[in-house]
Amino acid sequence: MTTPHGSFDTPAFMPVGTKGTVKGILPHLVKETGAQILLNNTYHLLLRPGPEWIQRRGGVHKFMNWGGPILTDSGGYQAFSLAETNKIDDEGVTFKSIVDGSSVRMKPENSIETQNQLGADIIMAFDDCPPPVDVTAGAGVDETQTARREAAIRRDTGKKGYDHNKRLDIALDRTAKWLERCKASHARSDEQALFGITQGGSDLDRRSKSVEQVCNVELPGYAIGGVAVGESTEDIAKVVEHTAPLLPLNKPRYLMGVGYERDIVMAVRAGVDMFDCVLPTRNGRNANAFTASGQIRLRNAKYAEDDLPIEPGCDCPACNPASHGWLTCAGGTFSRGYLRHLFYAEEMLGPILVTLHNLRHFQRFMSDLRTTIQTGDWGGFGVRWPVASSKAPENRG
Amino acid sequence: MTTPHGSFDTPAFMPVGTKGTVKGILPHLVKETGAQILLNNTYHLLLRPGPEWIQRRGGVHKFMNWGGPILTDSGGYQAFSLAETNKIDDEGVTFKSIVDGSSVRMKPENSIETQNQLGADIIMAFDDCPPPVDVTAGAGVDETQTARREAAIRRDTGKKGYDHNKRLDIALDRTAKWLERCKASHARSDEQALFGITQGGSDLDRRSKSVEQVCNVELPGYAIGGVAVGESTEDIAKVVEHTAPLLPLNKPRYLMGVGYERDIVMAVRAGVDMFDCVLPTRNGRNANAFTASGQIRLRNAKYAEDDLPIEPGCDCPACNPASHGWLTCAGGTFSRGYLRHLFYAEEMLGPILVTLHNLRHFQRFMSDLRTTIQTGDWGGFGVRWPVASSKAPENRG
Repeated sequence: MTTPHGSFDTPAFMPVGTKGTVKGILPHLVKETGAQILLNNTYHLLLRPGPEWIQRRGGVHKFMNWGGPILTDSGGYQAFSLAETNKIDDEGVTFKSIVDGSSVRMKPENSIETQNQLGADIIMAFDDCPPPVDVTAGAGVDETQTARREAAIRRDTGKKGYDHNKRLDIALDRTAKWLERCKASHARSDEQALFGITQGGSDLDRRSKSVEQVCNVELPGYAIGGVAVGESTEDIAKVVEHTAPLLPLNKPRYLMGVGYERDIVMAVRAGVDMFDCVLPTRNGRNANAFTASGQIRLRNAKYAEDDLPIEPGCDCPACNPASHGWLTCAGGTFSRGYLRHLFYAEEMLGPILVTLHNLRHFQRFMSDLRTTIQTGDWGGFGVRWPVASSKAPENRG
Repeated sequence: MTTPHGSFDTPAFMPVGTKGTVKGILPHLVKETGAQILLNNTYHLLLRPGPEWIQRRGGVHKFMNWGGPILTDSGGYQAFSLAETNKIDDEGVTFKSIVDGSSVRMKPENSIETQNQLGADIIMAFDDCPPPVDVTAGAGVDETQTARREAAIRRDTGKKGYDHNKRLDIALDRTAKWLERCKASHARSDEQALFGITQGGSDLDRRSKSVEQVCNVELPGYAIGGVAVGESTEDIAKVVEHTAPLLPLNKPRYLMGVGYERDIVMAVRAGVDMFDCVLPTRNGRNANAFTASGQIRLRNAKYAEDDLPIEPGCDCPACNPASHGWLTCAGGTFSRGYLRHLFYAEEMLGPILVTLHNLRHFQRFMSDLRTTIQTGDWGGFGVRWPVASSKAPENRG
């Protein structure tokens, strides 16, 4: 896909740089991992430092010193993930600022205005993301989801008289109406591609209806939203495999907030072109390293005396610094034992190195997916990436 | 000076990598700032991960993936800086571990054994560092010193019946006797250069006596210890200008824990060859950036809309990323405004970038000192580095 700030290969994985930085990683090192496009969060940048400020600095690319493509989300997802402190109505969302506690009103119009000011290459429609499952009806929240998502879902769906289908219909209706308002208020459509977002929870009929409504609005790309927000791996696959083929074939299809390798490969095979997720960065900061056969927890005692790199054979700067032209000690690497020491000593270099490894892991995974789409050798792919076919939600060593 | 892990130019400034990492900075980027030798702290590595562990990993160079020269201190200084929780006697120091609170006994013999295990190129004698001034006698603790140092000095010298001269004499006596024990227990003198440390507080006669005692032991290098530990800038200069010329001319002279630019230039002119200090790294993490005309506090409101780099014209990776081959946005830099945002957003990249700038600042300063020693143009040096002649303890903009 080509943007005013260069092109990126698809399927693409976008590292998340919430506040205008991929946490702990210098921009040229983000590039070194193979990333071609980044995601910034509109909600966070709206609160601090503010979109006018970033506009005066020359936009989000110059702001964070990243010359390549950038995508901003709309803030719609934060209405779900920060459900505890906000109120949603047919006009928009009232947030309580995570910076100073003040009240922040977000509507389709000012989400787009903010994104116009930030100046990303791809901007997202302001949508209503409903809870994916109804816990009052006995549907479980997937155990791999974060505590925050679980809490958000239980809070919404646990309300007295909660009607899940009604909530899904409201979300569809709002998302469709808000999309019209987003498009109407988009002032930089020549420079910024506005993507629509489809919703529908885990209900396939509603997913179809949302695609119909959203794709009825002519736009340069479309996304699947409200996936991997607390439902099971099976429900994720069911929704994506149903929805992705319904989106226009000649436009980029973006699965928001996904995910684990098994989810990505499933979605790519269903036709998805773009992904973003905090997994490589967040897990990296917590000493969890992704490998082709699953995550390993570097805090584990068994790695204390382990001189191997995170993943032998990996070409990332942490596992094979010499191949990146980094000055190193002869025969040296950043061993599992050293990384474990850094985490216990609360040294920044631990999160930095494991994040670099994880970012490279996902980029290498995407690169192999792009190759395999050409060759069709999915058997070989499965051998190279056991983690992608794992049934286990997280394979941690 | 040449070591088993390469040589370094003098006068040299050693960044501090207390726990086996220069906080937040990848080793090849430490090298990129021009650093040729690092310092690690024996006390911290003794507690975690432990010297046997590092020895089994192949020593401290391989441990932290730094192929160049490394110096380890002895732990003697921590008996001063962590005075609140330890006890010192003629045999050694009993520390309370900052990791788990357990009791750790450190004597000359096991300080050297630990440093033999760590395997640095230069190791330091275990010494007794006395308080530099007697607050009971009305001598003030310099206001630029850290709260911890002030507390340590007040605690020692504020004791009832405290006799400062007696304390200095005890320190001289212990330091001399411990040096003999250090040398006798040094098991790797063919690979590791043991440096002696002179003491004496701010008393010049005792400084002379300590040089006599310490230099009476034949060693490959000698250090001035107990300087810049709470005394005034004037006292620092008085002691260094008195002591440095007394040390053997044909051996490296190392001024421990110093310091600000004005102190370094004074010491270099007095004949000092080696320095270490936490200022560039610690201050960098606190958003204080060194410039040729003094420190600037990047948290200040006046930098909010400032698009300039930290120091225009600076060749560091933060100020001029393009010159380091880092991918950047066209015309981009890491602006003061962006850095300020990173610190307020509590993003790691803020400390990383300002630390890189500060490390480069000190290396550029040393490089210019080396040139000026050759040319003798100290007038030109003073014009290029106003901060070095500043009378103010800290010139903060």
